[in-house]
Amino acid sequence: MSHVPAGEAAACHLPSPHSQPFCLGAWAVPRFGARSLPSCSLPPCTGPAEMLLLQPIVRGPWVLQRTPRLAAVACGSHPRACVGWTPPRTHGTWSAGGSSRRWKVTAVGALLGLGAGLAYGDHRRQAEEADPKAAARPQAPYPVFTRQEVGRHRSPAERVWVTYGGEVFDITDFVELHPGGPSKILLAAGGALEPFWAMYAVHSQGHVLEILREYKVGELSPEEQSQPAQGDPYAGDPPRHPALKVNSLKPFNAEPPAELLSENYLTPSPLFFKRNHLPVPAVDPATYRLEVEGPGGRTLTLSLPELKSRFPKHEVTATLQCAGNRRSEMNSVRPVKGLEWGIAAISTARWGGARLRDVLTQAGYGEAEEEAGERHVCFEGLDKDLSGAAYGASIPYGKAMGPGGDVLLAYEMNGEELPRDHGYPLRVVVPGVVGARNVKWLGRVSVSREESPSHWQQNDYKGFSPSVDWATVDYTTAPAIQELPIQSAITDPPPGATVPPTEITVKGYAWSGGGRGVVRVDVSLDGGRTWHVAEMAGEEQPLGRAWAWRLWQLTAPVPPGSSALDIVCKAVDDSYNVQPDTVEPIWNLRGVLSNAWHRVRVSVAQD
Amino acid sequence: MSHVPAGEAAACHLPSPHSQPFCLGAWAVPRFGARSLPSCSLPPCTGPAEMLLLQPIVRGPWVLQRTPRLAAVACGSHPRACVGWTPPRTHGTWSAGGSSRRWKVTAVGALLGLGAGLAYGDHRRQAEEADPKAAARPQAPYPVFTRQEVGRHRSPAERVWVTYGGEVFDITDFVELHPGGPSKILLAAGGALEPFWAMYAVHSQGHVLEILREYKVGELSPEEQSQPAQGDPYAGDPPRHPALKVNSLKPFNAEPPAELLSENYLTPSPLFFKRNHLPVPAVDPATYRLEVEGPGGRTLTLSLPELKSRFPKHEVTATLQCAGNRRSEMNSVRPVKGLEWGIAAISTARWGGARLRDVLTQAGYGEAEEEAGERHVCFEGLDKDLSGAAYGASIPYGKAMGPGGDVLLAYEMNGEELPRDHGYPLRVVVPGVVGARNVKWLGRVSVSREESPSHWQQNDYKGFSPSVDWATVDYTTAPAIQELPIQSAITDPPPGATVPPTEITVKGYAWSGGGRGVVRVDVSLDGGRTWHVAEMAGEEQPLGRAWAWRLWQLTAPVPPGSSALDIVCKAVDDSYNVQPDTVEPIWNLRGVLSNAWHRVRVSVAQD
Repeated sequence: MSHVPAGEAAACHLPSPHSQPFCLGAWAVPRFGARSLPSCSLPPCTGPAEMLLLQPIVRGPWVLQRTPRLAAVACGSHPRACVGWTPPRTHGTWSAGGSSRRWKVTAVGALLGLGAGLAYGDHRRQAEEADPKAAARPQAPYPVFTRQEVGRHRSPAERVWVTYGGEVFDITDFVELHPGGPSKILLAAGGALEPFWAMYAVHSQGHVLEILREYKVGELSPEEQSQPAQGDPYAGDPPRHPALKVNSLKPFNAEPPAELLSENYLTPSPLFFKRNHLPVPAVDPATYRLEVEGPGGRTLTLSLPELKSRFPKHEVTATLQCAGNRRSEMNSVRPVKGLEWGIAAISTARWGGARLRDVLTQAGYGEAEEEAGERHVCFEGLDKDLSGAAYGASIPYGKAMGPGGDVLLAYEMNGEELPRDHGYPLRVVVPGVVGARNVKWLGRVSVSREESPSHWQQNDYKGFSPSVDWATVDYTTAPAIQELPIQSAITDPPPGATVPPTEITVKGYAWSGGGRGVVRVDVSLDGGRTWHVAEMAGEEQPLGRAWAWRLWQLTAPVPPGSSALDIVCKAVDDSYNVQPDTVEPIWNLRGVLSNAWHRVRVSVAQD
Repeated sequence: MSHVPAGEAAACHLPSPHSQPFCLGAWAVPRFGARSLPSCSLPPCTGPAEMLLLQPIVRGPWVLQRTPRLAAVACGSHPRACVGWTPPRTHGTWSAGGSSRRWKVTAVGALLGLGAGLAYGDHRRQAEEADPKAAARPQAPYPVFTRQEVGRHRSPAERVWVTYGGEVFDITDFVELHPGGPSKILLAAGGALEPFWAMYAVHSQGHVLEILREYKVGELSPEEQSQPAQGDPYAGDPPRHPALKVNSLKPFNAEPPAELLSENYLTPSPLFFKRNHLPVPAVDPATYRLEVEGPGGRTLTLSLPELKSRFPKHEVTATLQCAGNRRSEMNSVRPVKGLEWGIAAISTARWGGARLRDVLTQAGYGEAEEEAGERHVCFEGLDKDLSGAAYGASIPYGKAMGPGGDVLLAYEMNGEELPRDHGYPLRVVVPGVVGARNVKWLGRVSVSREESPSHWQQNDYKGFSPSVDWATVDYTTAPAIQELPIQSAITDPPPGATVPPTEITVKGYAWSGGGRGVVRVDVSLDGGRTWHVAEMAGEEQPLGRAWAWRLWQLTAPVPPGSSALDIVCKAVDDSYNVQPDTVEPIWNLRGVLSNAWHRVRVSVAQD
């Protein structure tokens, strides 16, 4: 019987298969807080242990690979003691303490409905490596059910059944394990999984089906197996530019090639990065109405022509950046959860529309509201998930109503009608604030003492210490990202390029949140030992309202004799905030706010 | 004849004494810009060179030691060619190209009237090392002059003479070399230096007198040598708390011991860091008047009772930080110019006074002014230098007039009358903005399309790239510091302390400019490899108006077996800006904005 020291509980490893399991008791619990481990208050185990159960007891999305986990595990004397563990590389049978009871590591990392995508790991490959013959094992014949019979199993009390193709599964024991949360998976209870998997493309990986098959309890009767064709909720998405680098098709998330980014101060709309959380809704401009909830519950309803005619058109050039821009650099330090963005989840456009403050003023709000305390302006999109929940976000009331906030209800992008991927017919543009609050396909605006209750405001898009992992994260402890920190990146040359031995031109972008202008970009050709000051282009912007990026470039001689260059850039904003030197110390489990110095290594052509 | 490659001109060294001098021509000039070297457009020298002159041709304050310099040098064929040089370690005679003409390296680094203090280096020690017998050389007898005769030499045309004690000096050739600029030194032309040196204590170093003696041309007649006692302009300064660590006595600049700083959320006024640029003026509250220049030249004049009765009293808890806080860390990388502040040039107080926007509104200003374009609110102190120039600074109009700006004309500090060292009877408090704009002993407020013309706004308190030195700096290229970046430091334990082997408590402060609240402080005990999240204390502050610091502490077990700890802290503000990892890449010649991770190394007591 081996014990794990308390201080290492979160990082310890399960013993390898066939060795003794272990457990630990109350003395480990304070490390993780009573909130996370309410049931772990037992003294350290002293007798021989028997593995009865292994399942995560921390709810919510979490990642399969390489991240230390907490799990409940039972030994003979302690039905629910705790261990820290790193998920093993296989799932399968594991003998423990003389028992050979079969248990399943049904750990799946995903983020259903959360719009991100590491999800579900390389589970299949690992399983195949571990047991290549598993697929060939003979299966017992299954009982046959009708859809009506399946439909009676819609809650844990009556067991939760679902179908996929012609097979029937009892997923009751998986409901609590579902990475997207129990509520999402219960939407499918008693019915077919296909419509949900069509919505959340993260399921389109072979091993997800493999995990499902562990729960198979039967088959549909042959005459019921032909499931009516499920409409693809993404079938109505608009066509996209072929140059885009796609990170996720459903929902659609893509960035332009970095080299193109710095070619235009205003990013052409087809190349502007796309960040959708759900299918693009089809909105009929003739019947479209924006609802603005006024004080006392009075609602102002505005058609598109009313929005355009009743409020003066205001134009703002603003850069939008996804919180996950440059996540791939963070992911290369330690795995994080989210779309694998490069450096181009950032773009700039000229937006035109009504000022949000004008619309809110017409709805009955005024500056006095700000004095009344902390308030938030909440937005709901018309893009909804299968449960009917709309994408949502909020911004501080002061940002919305301040004379210098420049928040728009935009119906134009780069002088044209808003494209469908960017929120047609109306979106919010919140200059200086993370993309996620710039709600597209805007349906409803309200003012509240609380931030938006949406998942994306409450339990996503927040920053944490590198010491916080999915076992210890508490989303209530961090503020929702609003203004973003100073950022810059090298768009040209690309990594691995070969440059001439004489002179090099380096190009890139720099931007800071909150209207803070970029005042300087330093570029190094020798990894940060010595620096050059780059030349900046871009429009002059008013103090405190520098919403758009600066493009910059540096032409400098290549140091004679160089065989390679380690090009680095770092920017400074007008509050003299700077970028951190390295990624590791700002690493966070969601891979947001990745703004360390950007580095590009190139070779120098030899004469 | 040796030539210096163009690319290395700014970093090359003068040949050692008695070797050949060198020169270079037009091809080196573009490296430094026509602005800096207007006269250096000669082809490279080809003939044997003769050293005629060596003097800096870049005006303004600069530093003696270790910083590459530009100088004009002449050879036989080129009366004014250019070299880059690092000042030699001695001044004295140098034979060059067959000539043995005597020249003086009269390089002195100072910043007269600029309120900073590396100044004048270790010139004396270096000189003594090089020529220990120099002081013993016999001097020729000098002619004798009257004060009246000296008084006739007040301009370069009639030669510039000054006296010091009983000696007379012709400093005409030094006027252009004066680190504080020609205008300051010319204030003393024809008279005694003592009153000026009393004002600018940077002159109180032996080698300054030594440099002066190189220019000696005579002596005062014996009956005139008894100079009337010069009043010490600092004699009227108030008494100070003995615990303060004094960086400069005249003007008075001091910080509290760091450990005391984190003991109180509100810093007791006697311990609040003091940063004076000039003597503390003696202001009679009965006759004191604040002048506020209104639109169209109309001036609003307010007595103290009028200020207190006509405008509602508003209270704000705000942290003030000197731009040079933590300069000593930057100085340890490469020498910078300025007071050697530790980590305690930051303090927090409760300020009470009239809102600046209320006073400006009464003077006739309104929000419309902001729409009219870029404007600045300029402040003048009653503290003046010998030329009559007042300390001055300005802030953006939007900060002054914005409803959330909270800028005060403060007459109270921590519930009591403003102490003299902090601006009695009235000072500006600009929350979220660098200390230097919080003008003390406020005499005048005006609104202008330009920033304050004062030296401290135009040619000081700005940030530059590490690649910029005193030869290349152009103050017009950087914005005046207003909002400061995210900052934190460890106040306890002090560096070098011995801590118990069981558990350690680390304390410190964290603050960010612009009203951005501190949302997290990460503390590492192992140099930044792993991190703990510290607990924060301090009042809740409204979003965007978090003007005061957060004090924080962390209690954590000392890793078993440690013999030393490398404690590090870094903070994050609500725009998720972070501190840079290291000092080197943010190094700047003035040593401002020093906000890299703070590190404290301690020993662990062994059992």
